[in-house]
Amino acid sequence: VDPGRRRLVARAVTLLVALGLWFCPVPEGLAPAAWHLFAVFSSAIFAVIVGALPILTASVLAAAAAVLSRTLTPEQAYSGFANPTILLIVTAFLLARGVVKCGLGERFGHIVVSRFGRSPLGLAYSIFLVDGVIAPAFPSNTARSGVLYPLVSGLAEAAGVRPGDTSRRRLAGCLMFSGVTSLSLSSGLWFTAMAANPLGAAIAKASGVTINFGSWLIAASVPTLATMALMPLVLYKLLPPEVKSTPEAPAAARAALAALGPLRRDEKIVTVTFVSLVVLWGLAAQLRLDSTAIAMLGLGVLLVKNVLTLEDLAKEGDVLVTFLWFAVLYALSTQLNELGFMGYLGVKLAGALGGLPVFPAYLVLIVAYVAIHYLFVSQTAHVLALLGVFLQVAVKLGIPAAPFAFQLLFASNYFSVITPQGSSANLLFTGSGHLTQGELYRLGAITTGISMVLYLAIGTPWLLLVARQ
Amino acid sequence: VDPGRRRLVARAVTLLVALGLWFCPVPEGLAPAAWHLFAVFSSAIFAVIVGALPILTASVLAAAAAVLSRTLTPEQAYSGFANPTILLIVTAFLLARGVVKCGLGERFGHIVVSRFGRSPLGLAYSIFLVDGVIAPAFPSNTARSGVLYPLVSGLAEAAGVRPGDTSRRRLAGCLMFSGVTSLSLSSGLWFTAMAANPLGAAIAKASGVTINFGSWLIAASVPTLATMALMPLVLYKLLPPEVKSTPEAPAAARAALAALGPLRRDEKIVTVTFVSLVVLWGLAAQLRLDSTAIAMLGLGVLLVKNVLTLEDLAKEGDVLVTFLWFAVLYALSTQLNELGFMGYLGVKLAGALGGLPVFPAYLVLIVAYVAIHYLFVSQTAHVLALLGVFLQVAVKLGIPAAPFAFQLLFASNYFSVITPQGSSANLLFTGSGHLTQGELYRLGAITTGISMVLYLAIGTPWLLLVARQ
Repeated sequence: VDPGRRRLVARAVTLLVALGLWFCPVPEGLAPAAWHLFAVFSSAIFAVIVGALPILTASVLAAAAAVLSRTLTPEQAYSGFANPTILLIVTAFLLARGVVKCGLGERFGHIVVSRFGRSPLGLAYSIFLVDGVIAPAFPSNTARSGVLYPLVSGLAEAAGVRPGDTSRRRLAGCLMFSGVTSLSLSSGLWFTAMAANPLGAAIAKASGVTINFGSWLIAASVPTLATMALMPLVLYKLLPPEVKSTPEAPAAARAALAALGPLRRDEKIVTVTFVSLVVLWGLAAQLRLDSTAIAMLGLGVLLVKNVLTLEDLAKEGDVLVTFLWFAVLYALSTQLNELGFMGYLGVKLAGALGGLPVFPAYLVLIVAYVAIHYLFVSQTAHVLALLGVFLQVAVKLGIPAAPFAFQLLFASNYFSVITPQGSSANLLFTGSGHLTQGELYRLGAITTGISMVLYLAIGTPWLLLVARQ
Repeated sequence: VDPGRRRLVARAVTLLVALGLWFCPVPEGLAPAAWHLFAVFSSAIFAVIVGALPILTASVLAAAAAVLSRTLTPEQAYSGFANPTILLIVTAFLLARGVVKCGLGERFGHIVVSRFGRSPLGLAYSIFLVDGVIAPAFPSNTARSGVLYPLVSGLAEAAGVRPGDTSRRRLAGCLMFSGVTSLSLSSGLWFTAMAANPLGAAIAKASGVTINFGSWLIAASVPTLATMALMPLVLYKLLPPEVKSTPEAPAAARAALAALGPLRRDEKIVTVTFVSLVVLWGLAAQLRLDSTAIAMLGLGVLLVKNVLTLEDLAKEGDVLVTFLWFAVLYALSTQLNELGFMGYLGVKLAGALGGLPVFPAYLVLIVAYVAIHYLFVSQTAHVLALLGVFLQVAVKLGIPAAPFAFQLLFASNYFSVITPQGSSANLLFTGSGHLTQGELYRLGAITTGISMVLYLAIGTPWLLLVARQ
């Protein structure tokens, strides 16, 4: 089929979906604004999934539609732009540019390749390993993505991925999606690897489930480590790299490292800056320091020391593009929640499950909790909106609270990859340009599905064993 | 002097200024946070003026300092990013790219050159003419800058300014600063050419001065038209163009127009989009439509019709740079005002003028009102913070209310050029890269000074004649 024609059809269908939803009678118990915002937001996501519009185009049109139709006030629609987490991502994008430009990312890549580089699969595993080890020190998975992304970029470069050259596109895509998936799993492994974990634990406490660092690690260990062990293989199959085996790579990497010589001035500055950032980010919660301001300080240092110049930043228009669409979708999703749409969905679902026996209800609730993440642009918002509702419904249906609470808490991490915008921690990787929007949605659906199956199959008996109130 | 050494000295002095202000005892009657924020904000502006840091570097460091020192909350420090006017500017930047890319800007430039192009001075006058005529239809001078800027860009291109070629740098700079100055004056000519005009008039009403479209036009006409008539000549002297006379340019422009042929597809789409934007922006106030959402709709249309592509936007990293520093400075300035610093300054000044006779007090108040704009990153915020205070002080000192109110209202327009960030309407032109930060500050100070002298010398007798309560 002619792609131009295909896109025209996709656009026509999107328009029909949008108008159909908009003019559909507002469901009982829902505010008209909530329903209309759902029509706008879901049409935008639909347009991206069917390839009718790029995500930026869909987002600016959605924002314009929401404001001009008075579904949202301008302040509501634009609130995402001032969100500290989103600004942290924007700053992390620019910091990552410094790591890549000074050559430190490539040097790290050569080091990893010299040890694990006999095959692309070894590289993918090394990403999960590095991330899994550093995760407990990062209460913000978004900040951690700011450290992991430049390292994965350097790894890709050391493995022969060159900008503009598509001959190792699948290899690059596999490494980038390894980064995203790794973040989603490492965040679930440690109580302190993700801001929404303690938050969700606090919500679970209202249903009598007490969780701390140790009990979380025990509960998470078996299903999470199993999923981590399998996931690189899955991605390797889904995006088979152009080269399967690179026995000569470790030696070449060692030669490249020797040729690079000792750390250069700019690399030293970037190393000191990043180590300081990591320490400050780790202490941010205790010292009550804002992670975004810490990142801005780091960016300021790189600019003052001329490691990054304004000319470098003037090339980063794609960061602006990501900033625009993500801030818009984030605000629309937040408002959808605040207007009561998400809670309404949870309550309706609970009502529909009334007569079900325990085990099918358990499965349906978890599948629904994960699938609804298509509508969310923030893990924290999802946890705040739905974790409590789902847990209460489960308890009423006779599902054991502790294992179910853990399942929801783990799902709140692994479902983050379901869409490119499912977590701000995805953006550096999904914005790298190595994967199309279509591939991101496909990979997101498959990896989320596999994680869910593993957490259900392995996690359920394990949690029944170790998780007690 | 070695420029590297010069910059080091400038940085050391900036650091001393920052620390000196920060640790200086907090003045009586001022909250410590207000004083500390003043130390941070004024050091950042100082760093830019003395060439210690580029404006982006100074801004991100200022934001980090304000948040990490707990002078501001993250929400306060980042609030500028969600400001609809700032987002309007960001969107207008991208829309302007569409006008330039499709060739419409250059076509318009050839049309103007074919009529006024015998000399660069003729081109500068044509900018003031076009802007002065379209101004009353634009209640937002920021939105108007979004239309004027691509036209001036096209004009510069038609006059031989090429990207990367600096042989006509002063000509380009003269045309860009003509755009900025023209906006500042045309906004003062018409009651409806700038959102802060009716706002200021409403504030003046509390002191018994009633102003409407007609009385504003009469009061503004003589001093504003005189300043408009002189300003292109002033800029021509300050930035003498590389070519003084271009007698062959009109014929060349006609030939270029003939070679261009009729409007192309993309030019037609951009024309229809911009005409629609102008109509919608003009009706925005009556229909209660948000100007930013209108601009986003226009951007969405250009993206859907492929006039602009994501690849085009990926090159617009300089828009991100402008977005970052302007949003930060805007938020810091807004908070400086909300913490009471600006009001404190006004009250202190009023107290100091207690014994002065009427005419010197009139002069000192206006000079002070204009000079304080160095601290503001928004005309509207300045009007809200200080117009009422200054007017009340003047009335108490026996200064006639109506002429003085008009002087403040006109100053609130012409002072917008005093710094590159003095108005969001400046940013498209000052961000064009044709003028350095140093030049922008020098030109801003001189043109603001000349406007002030003309408005005082010509405006004072004229206002005493026509402006009565």
